[in-house]
Amino acid sequence: MDTSGKTITCQAAIAWAANSPLSLEEVHVDPPKAGEVRIKLTSSGICGTDNHVLKGEVEVKFPLIPGHEGAGIVESVGEGVSTVKPGDKVLTIVIPQCRECSSCLHPRGNFCKKQDVLPTSGLMMDGTSRFTCKGKRIYHSFRTSTFTEYTVVPEIGVAKIDDEAPMDKVCVMSCEVPTGYGAAVHSTKVTPGSTCVIYGLGGIGSAVVIGCKASGASRIIGVDINEEKFPRAKALGVTDCINPRKLKMPVQDAVVEMTGFGVDFAFEAVGRPETMVAAWNSCHVSYGVCVIIGLAPTNSYLSLEAPEIITGRIMKGACLGDYKTRDDIPQLVTDYLKNKINIDPLITHQLPFNQIHKAMDLYNAGKVIRCVLLF
Amino acid sequence: MDTSGKTITCQAAIAWAANSPLSLEEVHVDPPKAGEVRIKLTSSGICGTDNHVLKGEVEVKFPLIPGHEGAGIVESVGEGVSTVKPGDKVLTIVIPQCRECSSCLHPRGNFCKKQDVLPTSGLMMDGTSRFTCKGKRIYHSFRTSTFTEYTVVPEIGVAKIDDEAPMDKVCVMSCEVPTGYGAAVHSTKVTPGSTCVIYGLGGIGSAVVIGCKASGASRIIGVDINEEKFPRAKALGVTDCINPRKLKMPVQDAVVEMTGFGVDFAFEAVGRPETMVAAWNSCHVSYGVCVIIGLAPTNSYLSLEAPEIITGRIMKGACLGDYKTRDDIPQLVTDYLKNKINIDPLITHQLPFNQIHKAMDLYNAGKVIRCVLLF
Repeated sequence: MDTSGKTITCQAAIAWAANSPLSLEEVHVDPPKAGEVRIKLTSSGICGTDNHVLKGEVEVKFPLIPGHEGAGIVESVGEGVSTVKPGDKVLTIVIPQCRECSSCLHPRGNFCKKQDVLPTSGLMMDGTSRFTCKGKRIYHSFRTSTFTEYTVVPEIGVAKIDDEAPMDKVCVMSCEVPTGYGAAVHSTKVTPGSTCVIYGLGGIGSAVVIGCKASGASRIIGVDINEEKFPRAKALGVTDCINPRKLKMPVQDAVVEMTGFGVDFAFEAVGRPETMVAAWNSCHVSYGVCVIIGLAPTNSYLSLEAPEIITGRIMKGACLGDYKTRDDIPQLVTDYLKNKINIDPLITHQLPFNQIHKAMDLYNAGKVIRCVLLF
Repeated sequence: MDTSGKTITCQAAIAWAANSPLSLEEVHVDPPKAGEVRIKLTSSGICGTDNHVLKGEVEVKFPLIPGHEGAGIVESVGEGVSTVKPGDKVLTIVIPQCRECSSCLHPRGNFCKKQDVLPTSGLMMDGTSRFTCKGKRIYHSFRTSTFTEYTVVPEIGVAKIDDEAPMDKVCVMSCEVPTGYGAAVHSTKVTPGSTCVIYGLGGIGSAVVIGCKASGASRIIGVDINEEKFPRAKALGVTDCINPRKLKMPVQDAVVEMTGFGVDFAFEAVGRPETMVAAWNSCHVSYGVCVIIGLAPTNSYLSLEAPEIITGRIMKGACLGDYKTRDDIPQLVTDYLKNKINIDPLITHQLPFNQIHKAMDLYNAGKVIRCVLLF
């Protein structure tokens, strides 16, 4: 049945308000407008940022369809779309690449001016939504919304990937892998023999571990308050696991003591100002590099001791590993197909989409690295 | 008369307490102990950090002899000193290079573990002072103390320079030039065609301007609340001068507006948390680099909006331009002698040492880039 140009009715998970359980609903998905792409999702990861959204910690508009880490097949395209066509395998990308703005045109920038993360409108670029449910307009999440059988996204946020890509897995290439692995190997270029600490051993933190290990780090310290994550983290390459709640000193002091003078590279994959400060203070004061990859709550502030800044440390934010998203992320998928990167250990669970509540429970209990929803 | 091994009596400027005028006194300077060098000063700059010290904003111990930007001739050396000998032309360096600690051994680090800036003891490495006045022990300032005819410093904080160096000028190579010029050309590697903003158009900020211009920056915005500094700043290469007190919007918003999206490189050469935050927020959110070179007051904090960090900006502290001080600073002097760097415009005033009060008044009125004291 050709659905092109027609509204599609399908199942989606809606968050009607902050801190309310997701509700599986029948939604109507409008056809893509000019410059837009409608995608039939095949898989979606559940990322920590989705959880921040559901808890109302990131400023978004409700009701919305959450999810941003999606893989799928192009169902139809709007007027003027030229880079993908129906049938193409694609990923939804939370930071688009418009190839026209100051960020996209700069050799190092990737935080495209046309993103909808900071701040979020919850709407497509023309200021309207493509979703309705029970007669109500439903907001988009970061112009991705992947907890749905069909979604509409801007063409500039769609990465066309290899036809051979296994669609039950590569959704993690849309966010987790570039954000975590990319932060280590691309944004930061972790050096062989270096010491690293990673705050947060969830999906993103685990991907950082893989990147640090691939870069030849000699010591990889993992920090988390949930010790259930430690065996898996060690299997990925973490050499020392620390639970801050079991220490008699601040965790940053413990990291400095363990490494003599502080680490070469610290990664914050939690999204909390307090862990960001701990990561900063875990660094060697002269040459340590602190990389922030977690999205902190709206209106939260990071407080750093001002005089100590001149000692030479670097603080750097990185979104999707500083990759030029549409250009570089497809290459990561190809590298996976060629066995240059192994992302399989990051996917510990796969569940059908209609078991999303069970998947959220597993996520909240810290029992998964990544649970992938299958459509 | 051979003074080696004897206590020298000479003139020095002593700060007996915070916020009290400098007092010219007769002081006794002990001979250098093992690993130390006694220097007959020929010139000393007056740096903004000296002013912070005198105002009690940086944690130091009083009474002390301030000053750290010195050039002089080695008078005598203590036991075991091998890298300089009496008669050598040298600079006093506030951040030593011991060549043994984790910072010195790292390719990028320069904040030697044997420094006495953060925190300050006010004493030599053996925990004692070499200065007495009226029977009282006088503290050292950052183990340099250059507002005196003779000083004693650790060998690891002495840079031997070219015999041809003009000793009435090259004192600025000890701090101002590496800190400012070096922050632009070495720490940050300002790129041709880039946009820059410099907060603070004093001595350090002026040296940053020279570095940005030498690097080919296309636009150099200078920010200061003292408009008397603007004509000199423009002569050095500043393209636009802004007085934040005359703006109807926060200065960072004005910089973003002037450049479209924020600058490529922002430098903070004031040493205040509020100007550090302004510099950070003047940067392009995706690829801007904010370089902190001013020493902020003890116990002050820098507060950054946490969610915005992931957009990709870099914050970096830099002390003496990240140079390996004893290895690299002599080369800057040689580059000056070969006309590769022109530091002459940075020295707007020279006064005899006994006119230090007049020199401080000129500094405080913002009438100088650098006033050099001559001995």
